[in-house]
Amino acid sequence: MRVDLVFSPQALASGALAGRTALVIDVLRASTTIVTALANGARAIVPCFSPEEARERAQRLSSGEALLGGERGARRLPGFALGNSPLEYTDERVRGRTILFTTTNGTHALLSAREAAALGIAGFVNVSAAAQWVLAAGRDLTMICSGEMGGFCLEDTVCGGMVVTRLQESGVPLTLSDAALAASLLSRHYEGRVRQALEDSEWGRRLRLVEFERDLEASSQVDAFAAVPVLAGDEIVLAPHLSSATHAAVVEEAKGRGK
Amino acid sequence: MRVDLVFSPQALASGALAGRTALVIDVLRASTTIVTALANGARAIVPCFSPEEARERAQRLSSGEALLGGERGARRLPGFALGNSPLEYTDERVRGRTILFTTTNGTHALLSAREAAALGIAGFVNVSAAAQWVLAAGRDLTMICSGEMGGFCLEDTVCGGMVVTRLQESGVPLTLSDAALAASLLSRHYEGRVRQALEDSEWGRRLRLVEFERDLEASSQVDAFAAVPVLAGDEIVLAPHLSSATHAAVVEEAKGRGK
Repeated sequence: MRVDLVFSPQALASGALAGRTALVIDVLRASTTIVTALANGARAIVPCFSPEEARERAQRLSSGEALLGGERGARRLPGFALGNSPLEYTDERVRGRTILFTTTNGTHALLSAREAAALGIAGFVNVSAAAQWVLAAGRDLTMICSGEMGGFCLEDTVCGGMVVTRLQESGVPLTLSDAALAASLLSRHYEGRVRQALEDSEWGRRLRLVEFERDLEASSQVDAFAAVPVLAGDEIVLAPHLSSATHAAVVEEAKGRGK
Repeated sequence: MRVDLVFSPQALASGALAGRTALVIDVLRASTTIVTALANGARAIVPCFSPEEARERAQRLSSGEALLGGERGARRLPGFALGNSPLEYTDERVRGRTILFTTTNGTHALLSAREAAALGIAGFVNVSAAAQWVLAAGRDLTMICSGEMGGFCLEDTVCGGMVVTRLQESGVPLTLSDAALAASLLSRHYEGRVRQALEDSEWGRRLRLVEFERDLEASSQVDAFAAVPVLAGDEIVLAPHLSSATHAAVVEEAKGRGK
């Protein structure tokens, strides 16, 4: 399996995702929030480019179904029920609801990766499940870090590196790009100390300034959920569960392909 | 001192270099070749966008002065005296000559960074001298990795991380961007094993395929030269030598600025 990683959606060459599995990573906070919302029973997340698009799409749904969520400048938007904190997306708030969702970096990364053969979402909170889903898909992988305004972002890269480690542990032979190799080395540096990576990152320091300390804590819970959000049409829903029996079969099959 | 790093010139935002020192890094092989050529007595290197521009500019010089150098697809260009191997740029070939120089990635990185207050060139072969030059300049630093076709490149990033380490050793307080921090962590992983970084990188593997093994060896000689190529007008020349007495004064002054 060939594994590549880009540090921001802007770095994606046109056509680069054709025939591949894509994994979008925005640890602080869109990935974590989306995983949490779906694991807590939300029916679907609809990624929207702009707050206006989110409001417009919400009006097409019943008021009991639609929920507006997201941020600009890390803050909840006017008229939105929810911000971009995973802690807001509780079972009580989200079960059965469709969330129209827009964030500064994360939703743009998602929408830029739609050409992939399959598109999933990963954070520290579901890193093992995401790797298992990638193995089951059996295609080459491109990880897309959301980055910060087109630039490099430490925590997303460390999370991508952890996906590489999980894939390596499966025994499937991998060919890593330089970026995937670098991510893997960085994640080894932070092994068992994911919270430290968030503390060290520029974005983590900024969130601390605006008092989102509890979001850092929630976002650093490795494998809190065995759930993988995937794009289906224009909605993000949970991928069907893979049992551990299935997992073993998936790994054997991937090894058999010898990719 | 604020220290940032971009993985490719394409990632440079417009105006991002204003008032800053820029350090361009293309370990395999433009940086190494330029340092070697100037250390071996070349009068100047003129970076050119295209082979045509190099040929055109050579015609303005006397035939005894001009030398054409560079590559496309890692190979010497038709009609060029020299390729992009540092081993070709010997004292006998280059002393006193002006080299019209064009490469796939490195010269583009150079030309994209002209807006910086000062622009220097670094590879493993002059990493300590480059860090000393950065300290002497006293400005914030942006390192520009040449990358590979706009993408991430392991060896340039590891070299940039080694510059960070040298700056840290001086005791001057640094504020690192996520990318500079990641580069620094990667360089620690390869500490004392620079050759391994080249072996691990995609570009290094490719050069091995085309039998440039000796270039990998030459490019991995840490601090082989105490020389820093800098841009002056449209030429690259050697920066004036800093003695170790000057170095101590430079460090003290930089600490005094408390940046």
